[in-house]
Amino acid sequence: VTQVDLQKQYAIGLDLGGTKILAALMDNNGTIMDQAEYRTPVEQGESAIWEQVKLSIDHILSENQTYKDQIRGVGVATAGVIDTKKSEIIQASNLGLRHVPIGAWIEDYFGLPVRIGNDANVAALGEWLYGAGQGFQNLVYITVSTGIGAGIISEGQLITGVGDSAGEFGHISIEMEGPLCSCGNRGCLENYASGTALARLVEQRMNAGEQSEFLQAYLPSITSKDIAQAAIAGDSLAIQAFEEIAYFLGIGVTNLIHILNPEVIIFGGGVMNAGQFLLPGIERTIKQRSIPMMGQQVFIAQSTLGSEAGIKGAAGLVFHYHKDEKMKSIS
Amino acid sequence: VTQVDLQKQYAIGLDLGGTKILAALMDNNGTIMDQAEYRTPVEQGESAIWEQVKLSIDHILSENQTYKDQIRGVGVATAGVIDTKKSEIIQASNLGLRHVPIGAWIEDYFGLPVRIGNDANVAALGEWLYGAGQGFQNLVYITVSTGIGAGIISEGQLITGVGDSAGEFGHISIEMEGPLCSCGNRGCLENYASGTALARLVEQRMNAGEQSEFLQAYLPSITSKDIAQAAIAGDSLAIQAFEEIAYFLGIGVTNLIHILNPEVIIFGGGVMNAGQFLLPGIERTIKQRSIPMMGQQVFIAQSTLGSEAGIKGAAGLVFHYHKDEKMKSIS
Repeated sequence: VTQVDLQKQYAIGLDLGGTKILAALMDNNGTIMDQAEYRTPVEQGESAIWEQVKLSIDHILSENQTYKDQIRGVGVATAGVIDTKKSEIIQASNLGLRHVPIGAWIEDYFGLPVRIGNDANVAALGEWLYGAGQGFQNLVYITVSTGIGAGIISEGQLITGVGDSAGEFGHISIEMEGPLCSCGNRGCLENYASGTALARLVEQRMNAGEQSEFLQAYLPSITSKDIAQAAIAGDSLAIQAFEEIAYFLGIGVTNLIHILNPEVIIFGGGVMNAGQFLLPGIERTIKQRSIPMMGQQVFIAQSTLGSEAGIKGAAGLVFHYHKDEKMKSIS
Repeated sequence: VTQVDLQKQYAIGLDLGGTKILAALMDNNGTIMDQAEYRTPVEQGESAIWEQVKLSIDHILSENQTYKDQIRGVGVATAGVIDTKKSEIIQASNLGLRHVPIGAWIEDYFGLPVRIGNDANVAALGEWLYGAGQGFQNLVYITVSTGIGAGIISEGQLITGVGDSAGEFGHISIEMEGPLCSCGNRGCLENYASGTALARLVEQRMNAGEQSEFLQAYLPSITSKDIAQAAIAGDSLAIQAFEEIAYFLGIGVTNLIHILNPEVIIFGGGVMNAGQFLLPGIERTIKQRSIPMMGQQVFIAQSTLGSEAGIKGAAGLVFHYHKDEKMKSIS
């Protein structure tokens, strides 16, 4: 391990996902010093998940004892409906959790203050503090993967909304009488432009007789990752499918621009690994459809933290809020 | 005039509109003490408009000399593209103004600090500080008149965006391949749900043969005000037209709810004088289409300040920002 720097402060980030739990020690410059990965035992329920969370934090703490007195707290990123004030998971379907006061548990067990955040919001914070959003005061982070979500920083403040649910960007309607979504809305952006929608689009085209030598081998269940590889190999069906979802994303993003007038929009999430096939089409649609002053002013960027946006943003919650009253009263 | 209260502070609000200039003296509780109205000489250009602005402020100052030392500044509400940091009107088409440093002019002439704001943002501030939004920290104010606009207060902060253009709610697309809008976008909400759209809808129906005894007299150019009166008189075409635009508004508002997760949405603007024919349909659509937790949590309200939201919000800019560095350095 490296030498102890007494000037530095550290935070533990915890990314609580449906398949894995990621824990990391990060310094206040956004450098990850150590990292541990554990499986999320969703099928074994709440107490088993809590045991793994303890193990993962214990792992980081025991391996980094020299930094012990400089660790300011634990930041947790999680999906689902949360209550950031109570640091409680209200409902996370992918984890099978309901009403879990994860913040209080960690605080009681480890004696460290805790902040939690919705995963898209936390990733936005990560990109803002340590990634592509550094130095901007008005930014939106958009994640495109199985679903679509967003995190909003406005005037240097994370916009969470009254129920910590702001940023449900995948569920804005871009087609008023479009297909019914599981959320209750119709014509949701997610239905047209998520990784799931991309795969469905390609499958439908192939079922209708369109040819793709590359993708033939992956039928009947093609993933967005397969389509990205096909596009890289020059497959025209794949490239065209990316262009179509880029158009839909551009329509949704134009709506966001008109509502929030951001300075920069950062794209992340798994599907954005194929960003080179998406960003030109997104930008073209924005330029074409948005109010000129707003559309020309906005800077479109790709995530620089990639899959680390969540864990860095989680740890970043600790530093971002450490002047906050609540954090103070605990620490 | 009433007695001088030494505890009180006052601000001058100026509502700079395309047809009239409204100036008012308001106290820090939102009570208007005095008011003056002047015509906006748009056809005579910049210097004539400035003369009327001077007259209107002079009027308020000379009639209220007892309060002179307690007046903290001037707040200006105006349409168009503005720069709040420089207190400059960049472009206001309805006033025929381009690059007018209205803030510096007022400051130089009257020796009072100035804050300016976009009219929908300022009305949102007015409702928040003195109207239906009092006590809430996350609210959206939506104005439905000739066009549709919004002002957003999030975590107790007015969201203006990087170019002071946030809240262009009328220009979100709710129908991706809908009619082309003058803004460049397609299927803009404004095209379906503004006062203009309401009048067009009724005219189209009547041209297609639908009957309305009440509205027959107003052809060929029916206004949204006429339609409101027809609805009050029980006219079924008018009532149905309001229900249709309420549906479109509900779709747009659901998008806003999913992005911002506000606690309350306040409706104002001329068309909302017929709120009783709109609010039930808006609420029904929101309940039907929004993510349950977010849609059930949001409180739908009608403006309580009505046509005074702009002038009270303008004066409110002075109090809201008076702790701000810029205001301090001037005063």
